[in-house]
Amino acid sequence: MLLALDLGGTFAFALTGAMTAIRVVRLDVVGVVTLGMVTALGGGIIRDILIDSLPPATFSDWRYLTVAAAGSLLAFVFGWRLTLLAGPILVLDAAGLSLFAVTGASKALEFGVGPGQAVILGAITAVGGGTMRDVLTGRVPVVLRSELYAIPALLAATVVVVTDRNGVYGPPAALGAATLCFGVRMLGLRYHLNAPSPPGMDGHGTRT
Amino acid sequence: MLLALDLGGTFAFALTGAMTAIRVVRLDVVGVVTLGMVTALGGGIIRDILIDSLPPATFSDWRYLTVAAAGSLLAFVFGWRLTLLAGPILVLDAAGLSLFAVTGASKALEFGVGPGQAVILGAITAVGGGTMRDVLTGRVPVVLRSELYAIPALLAATVVVVTDRNGVYGPPAALGAATLCFGVRMLGLRYHLNAPSPPGMDGHGTRT
Amino acid sequence: MLLALDLGGTFAFALTGAMTAIRVVRLDVVGVVTLGMVTALGGGIIRDILIDSLPPATFSDWRYLTVAAAGSLLAFVFGWRLTLLAGPILVLDAAGLSLFAVTGASKALEFGVGPGQAVILGAITAVGGGTMRDVLTGRVPVVLRSELYAIPALLAATVVVVTDRNGVYGPPAALGAATLCFGVRMLGLRYHLNAPSPPGMDGHGTRT
Repeated sequence: MLLALDLGGTFAFALTGAMTAIRVVRLDVVGVVTLGMVTALGGGIIRDILIDSLPPATFSDWRYLTVAAAGSLLAFVFGWRLTLLAGPILVLDAAGLSLFAVTGASKALEFGVGPGQAVILGAITAVGGGTMRDVLTGRVPVVLRSELYAIPALLAATVVVVTDRNGVYGPPAALGAATLCFGVRMLGLRYHLNAPSPPGMDGHGTRT
Repeated sequence: MLLALDLGGTFAFALTGAMTAIRVVRLDVVGVVTLGMVTALGGGIIRDILIDSLPPATFSDWRYLTVAAAGSLLAFVFGWRLTLLAGPILVLDAAGLSLFAVTGASKALEFGVGPGQAVILGAITAVGGGTMRDVLTGRVPVVLRSELYAIPALLAATVVVVTDRNGVYGPPAALGAATLCFGVRMLGLRYHLNAPSPPGMDGHGTRT
Repeated sequence: MLLALDLGGTFAFALTGAMTAIRVVRLDVVGVVTLGMVTALGGGIIRDILIDSLPPATFSDWRYLTVAAAGSLLAFVFGWRLTLLAGPILVLDAAGLSLFAVTGASKALEFGVGPGQAVILGAITAVGGGTMRDVLTGRVPVVLRSELYAIPALLAATVVVVTDRNGVYGPPAALGAATLCFGVRMLGLRYHLNAPSPPGMDGHGTRT
């Protein structure tokens, strides 16, 4: 089941990475597929380096490569109409974020890291690919910008770690954690919620 | 022979990385040598992380470090005249691209990865250093831009993998693959050929 | 003692990373803490990948994570007043640079790399986190810009390697190397000293 969630997240991120490429930078097929695959596989590769699980599963397992390439090509061929709307990208991105936060934390726990590290690794898996996408296209990464992006991922990873420590982690807990992350992310987008800014400044960088 | 090709590619990329630095950003000696070495060694380091061949050969083997440093310093001392012309940079870059695509795919096959992974690893070895150079200098990586950059590298790596599977891989096949990559890259530059753009858009990001 | 120096450098870099975030990009709490932790832990993680010491000590050891998170949060809560002044950021950054150059080179030697590699790894440990911080915030990394940033780190790492080869490396040599790095960096800042520029160009990129 972990594999199914992981491949689902890979597909969602490949679509969103490729669609972002078309929407923001308008690259050729190589650029679109490269960005889609980096977005889909980057977070898992960073996680696997940090837990010393090399070669990274997302790279050595042909299913991840195939799903990531298929999602990117699909976005290239059919996606340009969708890219006129920002909505689908954001929903797919939230789905990938939720699935990767759960599978990232689960895999980290399997490799015996501490609970704090597992929570951070869940978040890194979830935001790593999108961060690489944004760095490559010259934008400040979405995780550093706003509207509750890293926080729902940290929440979902925390649910995974806490249920695992209490021996009740399983498919229901995994789906619950992913749903929680998705819901918080969607609420954040809908109501433009942000994490707190530094004291003495409002959210727009103006001193109050 | 693989070592000779690999050191040749390292030298070519060190020159082009350092010359790009002088031409585009005009850094001091530390910046120029740093960018030259990152361009020359970055692709091989990413490949070695992904095939779990750590510490990376390009870092632990003093010959790579020496060749990369020598190329960067040479460009620093003598290169500014050359940098007035864009031509030499592009030719050297195509040479490095061709040599690294071949040696990258060869080394990946030695480490027992699948054929699809070997092709991708050849391309990553070829474009990785230049991508790091472009990210560090705040430019969109050349691999995401156009004029057939990744495609010749993928072609050369495919030739390596196919000949290897058929038991005819050797110095002639390696040189043939590198020549193919170099030729396609040069043709792409000469005639401004590009990979296909998303349907419904021309190559300049305008909807048709 | 190595651990104490290393945690000191981690704390200094967490503060400077978080304060740079607030000063330059003005992010929310997640962005500030993320940038603070990346700045504090990034250099050590790159070093540990290159010497094949995975999982990286700075990530698997909770003391580094705690110190980095504490420094970042401290800067978030109290730091905005300080960020009105550029001075403290530069001094803290020089302290982190000095401590990490020494501990980075020491750890590299423990893992049996050659002397040249140990010097480079000391410098990478010292400048890696700040480079990741600058790339993530869309700025050309400080190591590529000027005022003697990499050179003092290379000097300190060289002192570590030379004294180690001669059997006199110990706390006094470590502190001496760190002090040398700090002093050269501060002098460079005070008198706007720069490493040499390419022949035929002055330091501002104008041909002479």
